[in-house]
Amino acid sequence: MSKRIAGPEIERLIQLLAKVPGLGPRSARRAALHLIKKKEQLMHPLAGAMAEAAERVRACSVCGNIDTADPCRICTDPSRDDGTIIVVEDVSDLWALERAGAMNVRYHVLGGVLSPLDGVGPDQLTIGQLVARVAAGRVREVIIAVNATVEGQTTAHYLTDQLAPLDIKVTRLAHGVPVGGELDYLDEGTLAAALKSRTAF
Amino acid sequence: MSKRIAGPEIERLIQLLAKVPGLGPRSARRAALHLIKKKEQLMHPLAGAMAEAAERVRACSVCGNIDTADPCRICTDPSRDDGTIIVVEDVSDLWALERAGAMNVRYHVLGGVLSPLDGVGPDQLTIGQLVARVAAGRVREVIIAVNATVEGQTTAHYLTDQLAPLDIKVTRLAHGVPVGGELDYLDEGTLAAALKSRTAF
Repeated sequence: MSKRIAGPEIERLIQLLAKVPGLGPRSARRAALHLIKKKEQLMHPLAGAMAEAAERVRACSVCGNIDTADPCRICTDPSRDDGTIIVVEDVSDLWALERAGAMNVRYHVLGGVLSPLDGVGPDQLTIGQLVARVAAGRVREVIIAVNATVEGQTTAHYLTDQLAPLDIKVTRLAHGVPVGGELDYLDEGTLAAALKSRTAF
Repeated sequence: MSKRIAGPEIERLIQLLAKVPGLGPRSARRAALHLIKKKEQLMHPLAGAMAEAAERVRACSVCGNIDTADPCRICTDPSRDDGTIIVVEDVSDLWALERAGAMNVRYHVLGGVLSPLDGVGPDQLTIGQLVARVAAGRVREVIIAVNATVEGQTTAHYLTDQLAPLDIKVTRLAHGVPVGGELDYLDEGTLAAALKSRTAF
């Protein structure tokens, strides 16, 4: 859209919307028009929700989750088991595991994975805080739930080394066939891992 | 995400983001996390831009375009030819034609197409205003640029009937091969139209 058709306000709204992941320049225009048409039902409330979240949401100083409370409501939930910490790369992984709802435990968000080429060393991640949390006691098991990428696995090995002196159990997620997955579409590495870790019927 | 992990503010942000066209529930979560991480660079400015647009942007009372000024800057642009009005269904079509930049004329946004099954009759569209604009004089040509759908074509015929007594030229967009398009992928209707409207080399 050229500057001549609509005001700079609309232009700026489109430019900012285009930076939201999932929206490109074209869908940002569509989104902007939709928002303008649904001014009362959508644009006003969304602007308010964003301003409020920007104001109130922060990273938890204990685990790195995001919440309006600090410590977050996972860290302060009395029903959760203090003895187990699941280590994830990112808050989105924490949310994914919580949606699965399989374990009622604590988390630790690393904030990324070791990647020397991108200048991410142990000090850029929250590895020191994790070791301190574990050393402070009560933790019996750390489940390393980083992504199954090369950097993720490197990070997992580094974490294992760091946690080794603390005499706790360190585990990782199982590799195998996704539930509902078809063997025909799986890669050889996954199939080999699934065979190796086969369980009794 | 269950209510227990994050505050209601984040939950509400995700729910509202999921209503933006182009974002579903899954990408709304990704977008919310990204916005929270880019609080200063993106979430604050976007919230502000939305609030400002919601406050200041309105539909032009002459042509139906959206702008912060009323009449909009297309209607008040002195360089544009008053003699020609391009009739479109929606503001997005107006923007698309302006991006093409082929004609420096005025527009009229219908606000939809005739669709009796959805309860859209002539009174739900801005057809009366268009006829009044044309009847007020100076207009020599109306270019009907509605979509090439059944409803669009019905609307075009209705408009032609309404404009017939006014003794002006009424035209429509040419059908033909899209620029850069491959014949092999085009439907028969388009190819037949392109052959029928063939032009001399």
